[in-house]
Amino acid sequence: MTFRATVLTLYPEMFPGHLQYSLSGKALERGDWSLEAVQIRDFAADRHRTVDDTPAGGGAGMVLKPDILAAAIDAAAPEGDTRPKLLMSPRGRPLTQTRVRELADGEGCLIVCGRFEGVDQRVIEARGLEEVSIGDYVLSGGEPAALTLLDALVRILPGVMGNALSGVHESFEGDLLEHPHYTRPQAFEDRDIPAVLTSGNHAAIEKWRREQAEELTRTRRPDLWQRYLRNRS
Amino acid sequence: MTFRATVLTLYPEMFPGHLQYSLSGKALERGDWSLEAVQIRDFAADRHRTVDDTPAGGGAGMVLKPDILAAAIDAAAPEGDTRPKLLMSPRGRPLTQTRVRELADGEGCLIVCGRFEGVDQRVIEARGLEEVSIGDYVLSGGEPAALTLLDALVRILPGVMGNALSGVHESFEGDLLEHPHYTRPQAFEDRDIPAVLTSGNHAAIEKWRREQAEELTRTRRPDLWQRYLRNRS
Repeated sequence: MTFRATVLTLYPEMFPGHLQYSLSGKALERGDWSLEAVQIRDFAADRHRTVDDTPAGGGAGMVLKPDILAAAIDAAAPEGDTRPKLLMSPRGRPLTQTRVRELADGEGCLIVCGRFEGVDQRVIEARGLEEVSIGDYVLSGGEPAALTLLDALVRILPGVMGNALSGVHESFEGDLLEHPHYTRPQAFEDRDIPAVLTSGNHAAIEKWRREQAEELTRTRRPDLWQRYLRNRS
Repeated sequence: MTFRATVLTLYPEMFPGHLQYSLSGKALERGDWSLEAVQIRDFAADRHRTVDDTPAGGGAGMVLKPDILAAAIDAAAPEGDTRPKLLMSPRGRPLTQTRVRELADGEGCLIVCGRFEGVDQRVIEARGLEEVSIGDYVLSGGEPAALTLLDALVRILPGVMGNALSGVHESFEGDLLEHPHYTRPQAFEDRDIPAVLTSGNHAAIEKWRREQAEELTRTRRPDLWQRYLRNRS
C-alpha cells in the first residue's frame, strides 16, 4: 500500500526537497509513498490571488485566510478521505516518535504549512487540524517542519530501510539516550576504544552500555530521565 | 558580515534544499549567508572510500569512523576557525530559540550530519562537537535536522526578514504559546470572529489574547506553563 502525503503550501517548489535523495527518494521512486504538493494560492478567489489579511484586533504580521485554506483542504481531501490533517505550528503538541509511528501505520496524511503570523483559528477548528510542533524554535514557515516530519515518517514505512537497518536500536525506544559508539581504528589520536568493548564479555558490554546511556540521559535530559524512572518503577 | 555555514555530510546534494527558496534563498543570493556542503567521503583513505565500520562491542548498524570525520572537520575548519562545531544527533541537547539566537549572533557554524547508527565518540570529544537535537523523534540522518536548524538561524540574520516581519511576535519569546489568530471574512461558515477582537477596545483585546495564550499553554504544554509560572514569580 502506498502511503499518501499531501502538503498544502505557498512554496510547493520546496517539495520533495531533500526527500528526493537517499532511502526516502528511492522509496518515492518505487511508489512506497507518494507526495503531492498543493499550492494554496490556487484557491484564492480574487485576481491578486490574495491568501492573507491583517489580524482582527490589530498587531503585526498577516493571517492566512480561513476560506481560502478551507477550499484548498476540501479539494485535497474530499469527503471520505480519512487521513489525519496536520498543521505544522510552534503552538502544536510536540512531535514524538510514538506519533510518528501511528502516522506511519496509517494510509497517509495531509499537512498544512503555515506562513506569516499564523492561520485563522476557525479553519483549524472547522477542519479538525491537528497542530504539530517539531520543536521549541521558530522557523520561516511550516515547510521545513513538514519535510522533517515526512523524513521521520518515511524511514519507518515498510520496505524503506530494508533489513540491514531495521534491527538498529533507536533512541527514544527505551526512554534513554543512546550509549556512545566506537569503531576502528583501535587508537585514534591519543584515545583508545574503551577496553570493555573489545573484551568479548557480552554481559559486561551490555552493562557498560546501559550505565553510559543512563548517565548521559540523567545529566543531559533530566526530563527523559524522570520519565524513565517512573516507567521503570 | 556573511554568516558562514559549513555542513559535513554524505549527501551534499541535499543542500541548500528548501533553503534555496523564499527569504533564505534571497539572502543566500545576496550573500547575507553562505553555505558550503562538504562530502565526508572525500576524506576516506582507501580505494573503496569507506567511511564507516562495525561497532566495537558488537550490535547492529555501522559507526562513522573517527579518523575520516576528523580529517573532514580539520579541512573544513582549520586552526583559527572559531565557529561552533555542531553534531546533529538525537542524543544532543534540545535546540532552543535562545541557542538559535546565540548562533545567529556569531560568524557562522560547522554542522556535522550523522548517518548510520552513530559517530565514534572519540571524534566528538577530540573536536569538541556540540551535540544538538531538534526533537525527540528519529530521522534518516542529520541532514533534515541541519536544514531545519539553518532555516531557524537564517531567518533571524540581520536583513533577512526585512522590517515588515521583524516586529512580529514570536512564540517562545515570552514562554507562552501564541493566542489564536483571526482575519476576514467576519463570518466563516457558521463561525464569527470573536466579538472582542472587533470591539476596538485595545485593553480588552490584550487581556483576551493573554488569557487565550495562558489557557492554551496550560492545557497543551504543561512544561512551558510551569516555566512561565516560575519566571513570573
